[in-house]
Amino acid sequence: MRDIYFDNAATTKTDPAVARAAYDMMVSNYGNPSSLHGKGLSAHSAVQGARESVARLMGAAADKVVFTSGGTQANNLAVIGGAMAMRRRGDTILISAFEHASVAAPAAYLEKNGFTVRRVAPMPDGTMDVGQLAAAVDEKTVLVSCMLCNSETGALTPIDELVPMIRRLNGTCLIHSDAVQAFGKLPISVKKLGVDLLTVSAHKIHAPKGCGALYMRKGARVLPLEYGGSQEKGLSPGTESTALIAAFGKAADLAGQNMADNHGKVAALCEYFVNKARSTAGLCMNSPPDATPYIRNISVPGYRSETMLHHLEAGGVYVSSGSACSKGAKSPVLTAMGLAPQLVDSALRVSFCRDNTEEDVDVFFEVLGDGMQKLVRSK
Amino acid sequence: MRDIYFDNAATTKTDPAVARAAYDMMVSNYGNPSSLHGKGLSAHSAVQGARESVARLMGAAADKVVFTSGGTQANNLAVIGGAMAMRRRGDTILISAFEHASVAAPAAYLEKNGFTVRRVAPMPDGTMDVGQLAAAVDEKTVLVSCMLCNSETGALTPIDELVPMIRRLNGTCLIHSDAVQAFGKLPISVKKLGVDLLTVSAHKIHAPKGCGALYMRKGARVLPLEYGGSQEKGLSPGTESTALIAAFGKAADLAGQNMADNHGKVAALCEYFVNKARSTAGLCMNSPPDATPYIRNISVPGYRSETMLHHLEAGGVYVSSGSACSKGAKSPVLTAMGLAPQLVDSALRVSFCRDNTEEDVDVFFEVLGDGMQKLVRSK
Repeated sequence: MRDIYFDNAATTKTDPAVARAAYDMMVSNYGNPSSLHGKGLSAHSAVQGARESVARLMGAAADKVVFTSGGTQANNLAVIGGAMAMRRRGDTILISAFEHASVAAPAAYLEKNGFTVRRVAPMPDGTMDVGQLAAAVDEKTVLVSCMLCNSETGALTPIDELVPMIRRLNGTCLIHSDAVQAFGKLPISVKKLGVDLLTVSAHKIHAPKGCGALYMRKGARVLPLEYGGSQEKGLSPGTESTALIAAFGKAADLAGQNMADNHGKVAALCEYFVNKARSTAGLCMNSPPDATPYIRNISVPGYRSETMLHHLEAGGVYVSSGSACSKGAKSPVLTAMGLAPQLVDSALRVSFCRDNTEEDVDVFFEVLGDGMQKLVRSK
Repeated sequence: MRDIYFDNAATTKTDPAVARAAYDMMVSNYGNPSSLHGKGLSAHSAVQGARESVARLMGAAADKVVFTSGGTQANNLAVIGGAMAMRRRGDTILISAFEHASVAAPAAYLEKNGFTVRRVAPMPDGTMDVGQLAAAVDEKTVLVSCMLCNSETGALTPIDELVPMIRRLNGTCLIHSDAVQAFGKLPISVKKLGVDLLTVSAHKIHAPKGCGALYMRKGARVLPLEYGGSQEKGLSPGTESTALIAAFGKAADLAGQNMADNHGKVAALCEYFVNKARSTAGLCMNSPPDATPYIRNISVPGYRSETMLHHLEAGGVYVSSGSACSKGAKSPVLTAMGLAPQLVDSALRVSFCRDNTEEDVDVFFEVLGDGMQKLVRSK
């Protein structure tokens, strides 16, 4: 039985060429980038090369990109570090109610420490009404954070429309977007988006886990959360994770070269998936139609997510119940959309990559249908 | 010309078997440990296996070890997270004056935020008088941090003697030790040391950069510095860096298996080095005689560190001027020892690993002697 991995939004298999780049750094280019000798310079060069690759994929200058230990560190720097840097200007931050835990939890931390946090819910279809989000901005707002591509539904938010709306109401607040699920899959230009801060991650684009980056527009200031060396502008201090950074650079190069091709493949596959879903009785689509083709969230009311997940797994198909990070807890994203509890409880996230095939989708629906026949319905 | 890498305290070459463990995780065991399906469980198992390996090497239970993005994150969690968790009990922390920047800078951050920081200088020979350090503890002290093995001189502090002295004066304060330069090289038992918190790092023991761990004794509490998922007890949230963690586990296994053998080789090599140094006119030894054999700090008064470093490099020999992290700045460690400026300005750190040979040491002294003849003396 062939594994059918439909959990690419949780994490991806590292591309062997990318893993090789990491391996080579470990055994051949092993210097400490802070060392003054040639082995240090060589490692430093590799880090700088990767920085250019990652920056290029978001249309940024390399010196505006700071490597982090992952999307979570980047989001924490943006939200906590950003709000703290702006504290003298105000004490309110504004986020969407469908953010990933690595934005939502830092916001909750700020809330416990004297900030006011406003949360704007998505529409019932999973999309964000950017007019409604922008309308919640006032002169005390120091930071706005809204995901570019939602990690559970794939809903895309037109950040490029949101930003000018916010700037009209408040010319100084920091605007951040978590682009982890969009980066390397959809064309991104930080200039077009107009954001001050953007979070990206390596392991969603076939690079290893443990590396990410934060784009910081010129003049955007965030305070560090850790202290030590001056690496990564002092924002991610400590010896650089050179192997993972080099791998991230390699993955960014490959993602850039193959973006249109990959997107075409995945879009066709997603259409195939959606058509099959439509013709499956008892199945509800939670993702909006114009979501990224890389993610579709469905519900099979009456069958608890985890039960169906394990049934699918027994059939060789790997999906997720909500976000991997929530470890089976009720999805805050679907709840924020106002979905009925039986839809939330039976949600499955199916997330694709270029390596998945229509045959994989056929197997998915076969095993799913089998589960709907055999599994005991929950109340 | 063969490279002679004498900068192993800055970072080490990853052992190919260790790099292979990382590679295999990337391409074969690529699940997200938080995923509920088998690919998640498999990745989770690998992380737990590595946790046992790392814990074993310090005589700890696996559930007391939290993986971090490196020694710097572990030190920040210990110092800032530890002090913040204890804030209601007091507002004073005590550190040695020869700590690494990843302890010294968090302490300085606390100082700016209402804490009193006491710093106790090492003796002129580079060692720490533990009686003097303990004497600076009072009832307001909430955290004490002292390195086990100094990163610049290799000086070893008898933490096992220090801890009971501190406990007698203050039964509640957290006691932390940065063991980055000792872990995997010298036998460590957290029980024998008696510390509450201990920092270790992967890349000093032939594992990749970007991974470390914090030991936390039962009951020792530290506050997180970042928020998001519940990974690593919520102290290092975000998807685990599974490949680096697995590599760290492999490196810990190898270090444990070969510790005595490696130590024997390096001790013999260091003795050879020290004897040659003694018979070299114009060379001063800054490391105490009973320092770890893995590190020796010397000065060649009249020849600036960076000048000599580059001369050595031209001869194929890689050493460091102080710590790699200070990027050529005056060593705070040697300054704290009270060394004369011309000794500080000409300091070189030579740090060994099991792969270095006596022949390498011969070449080092040959090239050094050549430099002393040819280079222009500084004032």
